[in-house]
Amino acid sequence: MITMNFNQHCLALQLRHRSSLCVGLDPDLARLPETVRHDTVLASVEQFCKGIIEATAAHACAYKPQIAYFASLGAESVLEDLAAWVKKNYPNHLWLLDAKRGDIGATAEHYAKEAFDRYLADAVTLSPYMGLDSLEPFLNREGKGVFLLCRTSNKGGNDLQMQVLGNGLRLFEHLAHTAEQHWNGKGQIGLVAGATYPDEIASIRQQAPSLPLLIPGIGAQGGDLLTTVKAAQTNFFINASRSILYASAKSDWQKAAANEAESLQTAIEKARAQ
Amino acid sequence: MITMNFNQHCLALQLRHRSSLCVGLDPDLARLPETVRHDTVLASVEQFCKGIIEATAAHACAYKPQIAYFASLGAESVLEDLAAWVKKNYPNHLWLLDAKRGDIGATAEHYAKEAFDRYLADAVTLSPYMGLDSLEPFLNREGKGVFLLCRTSNKGGNDLQMQVLGNGLRLFEHLAHTAEQHWNGKGQIGLVAGATYPDEIASIRQQAPSLPLLIPGIGAQGGDLLTTVKAAQTNFFINASRSILYASAKSDWQKAAANEAESLQTAIEKARAQ
Repeated sequence: MITMNFNQHCLALQLRHRSSLCVGLDPDLARLPETVRHDTVLASVEQFCKGIIEATAAHACAYKPQIAYFASLGAESVLEDLAAWVKKNYPNHLWLLDAKRGDIGATAEHYAKEAFDRYLADAVTLSPYMGLDSLEPFLNREGKGVFLLCRTSNKGGNDLQMQVLGNGLRLFEHLAHTAEQHWNGKGQIGLVAGATYPDEIASIRQQAPSLPLLIPGIGAQGGDLLTTVKAAQTNFFINASRSILYASAKSDWQKAAANEAESLQTAIEKARAQ
Repeated sequence: MITMNFNQHCLALQLRHRSSLCVGLDPDLARLPETVRHDTVLASVEQFCKGIIEATAAHACAYKPQIAYFASLGAESVLEDLAAWVKKNYPNHLWLLDAKRGDIGATAEHYAKEAFDRYLADAVTLSPYMGLDSLEPFLNREGKGVFLLCRTSNKGGNDLQMQVLGNGLRLFEHLAHTAEQHWNGKGQIGLVAGATYPDEIASIRQQAPSLPLLIPGIGAQGGDLLTTVKAAQTNFFINASRSILYASAKSDWQKAAANEAESLQTAIEKARAQ
């Protein structure tokens, strides 16, 4: 029996769902629809996240909980419950923990436990600044994946990522090259590439032809979809969070989220076909 | 009235305690002394951390809880309780959350809430990969500090940090230069520099004469103390975790931790005087 590695699994999920849409779960109390205002904060957050997933599952292939939104509320138990619920009810959607962790040795082992054992993640976002040995405790988990920050969608991304190295590559290109050529032996690595810089997604794709890309920055951040999809070519996830989560603050919030997700899924598939 | 900024506050703490010792709190269940094995995991971790702080407070000027050790156990409530207890009983020790977070915008705001509001940190470690705007939600908190990963003590630190840029500086030197010259307007930034590379601490000090340094890698990781202290010059924290926490697994664990802390404090002060 041949088992797919994580990189292949990403592509298989996109094909299965005919979708490259990843929905980011960033539950912001101040923006929750009126009708999910429960007695307790934790109940509201849980109801909202489940409601978004139910409404959008037909249009998405991945969900990306952003752990900071849970941690700032002390809502770790909600994220645990949500993880178990997703694994039971949506086992064929990618469950990607956005945590951007980065540490070494025993500490990295503990972060891997947090992501994979506690929150049941299929993959986790990591910062690459500490290098390969900071990734190893995650890569040692067979079948699991990591998405390394490569070229981020914010202005400050220029500060380090755009520095030109002695080899002529910019730092983010060097990272993409190194990840593809030297670190991806077991097919577990992906890269984060912001849609605000489609030319740089093309450069990443040149350096890393086979790695799945996680692309935030469409939607609220304003990246252009067609040029992004053309640059990313294949095996990519387009992430949208706020534009779907907060499509309506009224009682039609699930319908509005579903419409927004469907519309983005359709636009991605159309761009892919162009 | 003149208020000290965070950089000055670091130096004042070191002078007050006649110590540059930071004790890292990495509570590893498998290594807890037999006599702190309580009925529950959470009670054990709390008793152990408090016991270490009580035993070493006369020799240390800072404590650095590593959040991964709490998160992998679901022990966030212990870290909250510990934070409140430290703020009440040891208000003149620096309470530095080692989290190495790094994200942007609203997400970074939530991480700042986690560190400063939930865990009452005076300062937090951050990854610099996403640049200045990823630091701003932390720097907007008056009086709080951030320590940016600069040159880390692990082998993989070479992968990105040692890359030579077009301006002739290595990436970590460029970061130190940028942090000192452009980002430290309100005196809130420090740098993390591993003791395994004392020559590179000297390079960091050249680029960043005024920033406090947080230096792991002495003790279990084997860095040389005298060359490290000479390179760091002044305003630095030498962190030790395992060598103090697990100095004894028997009933004398507090006494052993105190001895180890005192011995390291004395060695640092001796090196400083040489």
